Amino acid sequence: MTLPILALDYGGTKLAAARLERGERTWRARRRIPSPPHHDAAYDQTTMLALARELLGDDTPTAIGVSFGGPVDVTTGTVRLSHHVPGWENIPLRDQLQREFGAPVWIDNDANVAALGEWTFGAGQGCTTMLYVTVSTGIGGGWVLNGEIYRGADGLAGEIGHVVVRPDGAACVCGKRGCLEVEASGPAIARRLRERLPAGATDDITAEFVARRAQQGDPLAQEVMDQAAQILGEGLGIALNLMNPQRIVLGGGVTKSGERYWSIVRETARAYALLPAVRVDIRPAALGDDAPLWGAVALAQP
Amino acid sequence: MTLPILALDYGGTKLAAARLERGERTWRARRRIPSPPHHDAAYDQTTMLALARELLGDDTPTAIGVSFGGPVDVTTGTVRLSHHVPGWENIPLRDQLQREFGAPVWIDNDANVAALGEWTFGAGQGCTTMLYVTVSTGIGGGWVLNGEIYRGADGLAGEIGHVVVRPDGAACVCGKRGCLEVEASGPAIARRLRERLPAGATDDITAEFVARRAQQGDPLAQEVMDQAAQILGEGLGIALNLMNPQRIVLGGGVTKSGERYWSIVRETARAYALLPAVRVDIRPAALGDDAPLWGAVALAQP
Repeated sequence: MTLPILALDYGGTKLAAARLERGERTWRARRRIPSPPHHDAAYDQTTMLALARELLGDDTPTAIGVSFGGPVDVTTGTVRLSHHVPGWENIPLRDQLQREFGAPVWIDNDANVAALGEWTFGAGQGCTTMLYVTVSTGIGGGWVLNGEIYRGADGLAGEIGHVVVRPDGAACVCGKRGCLEVEASGPAIARRLRERLPAGATDDITAEFVARRAQQGDPLAQEVMDQAAQILGEGLGIALNLMNPQRIVLGGGVTKSGERYWSIVRETARAYALLPAVRVDIRPAALGDDAPLWGAVALAQP
Repeated sequence: MTLPILALDYGGTKLAAARLERGERTWRARRRIPSPPHHDAAYDQTTMLALARELLGDDTPTAIGVSFGGPVDVTTGTVRLSHHVPGWENIPLRDQLQREFGAPVWIDNDANVAALGEWTFGAGQGCTTMLYVTVSTGIGGGWVLNGEIYRGADGLAGEIGHVVVRPDGAACVCGKRGCLEVEASGPAIARRLRERLPAGATDDITAEFVARRAQQGDPLAQEVMDQAAQILGEGLGIALNLMNPQRIVLGGGVTKSGERYWSIVRETARAYALLPAVRVDIRPAALGDDAPLWGAVALAQP
């Protein structure tokens, strides 16, 4: 007899699904499909159903965990919207999946689910209180307090990307200025380097490029990376003072920028935390892009 | 038969104690004694015992709740230190009181206990998640999440006073620059006005004086109060984005600075929060100086 758990990850640029047996810690099967440009919610739904059916074969799942790339009303299981994919407004995804597969479904936004994944299976294991922060195109975060996702009053806790760290800083998509996201995300790093170079042939600069140039010793790229690390460290220092988590776990592409980046992040967080009492334990995420899938597994086995 | 609960509040400048019957919501008796200058822990201990015995008469307490004005190790019930009163280092206050009165004792620092007091009996009633912030000589805070004090990994959660809001700001006692406390507390308000006036006859300026002058229409005092309100609002906006509490309750002398002060605090917090989704519900504390005593009552009736 088989007791499959299904983990689904609806990302802005890809769909992923995986299957394992209840209680196990290795995937029985896993699929990942990059989404085509200009896709919509209908595409996401059809494609994910096909993926899931392929993984299940003739088996019935015992539980399904879902990570969604956008705000979700956890009490009703309804997607509020996707910031990247049109057509997701108010779709009752949990109920749809429950009807489709005849199994209980748990759903939450990707930052919360990834946080739970790292806490249960990754770099957060053994913690009572953990903040997970992902630094890539955006900056998002999720709290696990005493083994549970902490969502706040409106399901928006963990929005560290929109904490203001530079009151006179750059304009953010959210309408404010100087948010952590607009000062320290991947696009922010690319923007800072572009601003320092002559106009023209610099449109294709990415954070990855800047990080690589910095690691090769380019002083301008290093300056830009150092500044991004410093500002991220300031944001983490704020979280340390407000919530005193036992550990902060950092994921996302930008955090793969090498030892120098990490040591500036840690040093700055330490400088901004109320020492000596507040502990500063900042570690790299362990699950990479699979964090939402692993979190979905944890969500489905409460 | 009587079932007395004893509430004790060890403050930096006063001692307070009160007694009520289990389950009741009015004091049977209450005492408050301002401390003499240069007093020490031994004075605090002797005086508080005398106060408590006076309140109890021949009765035995069924439980004792304690608010302490400084960091406390809640698991062992040991005071770490007082920032204002010498000699409190590592005193096992919980065990001492348990031995003395033969009753179970609960203890926590004053910000946490006041937060629990406001949540149970004051402006936080009915909330699932609440941040309490007191703005007076210092700025402190405490979290109540799902009906319990949230302490963080080292008992230091809620240190919003040492969140950096002005990276290039004034030097704070904690060693950093531009902490919320050094930019928006009572002494910060007094300092800002003093800096704007000719040197000399300005040593006795207090935040209360500045607030009163501002309410009387003095433009310089208004500017100073407005700035303090703005910076406090920024700090609260950070907490709103990070933790999405259902409500923020503001206490402490500085928050008695009138409608203009409050509307700037609320407006700024709103401008710094991730709208429209994050709710902004900021209310004045209801229990005033009694918040720690009421919190001690709640602590003693878990």
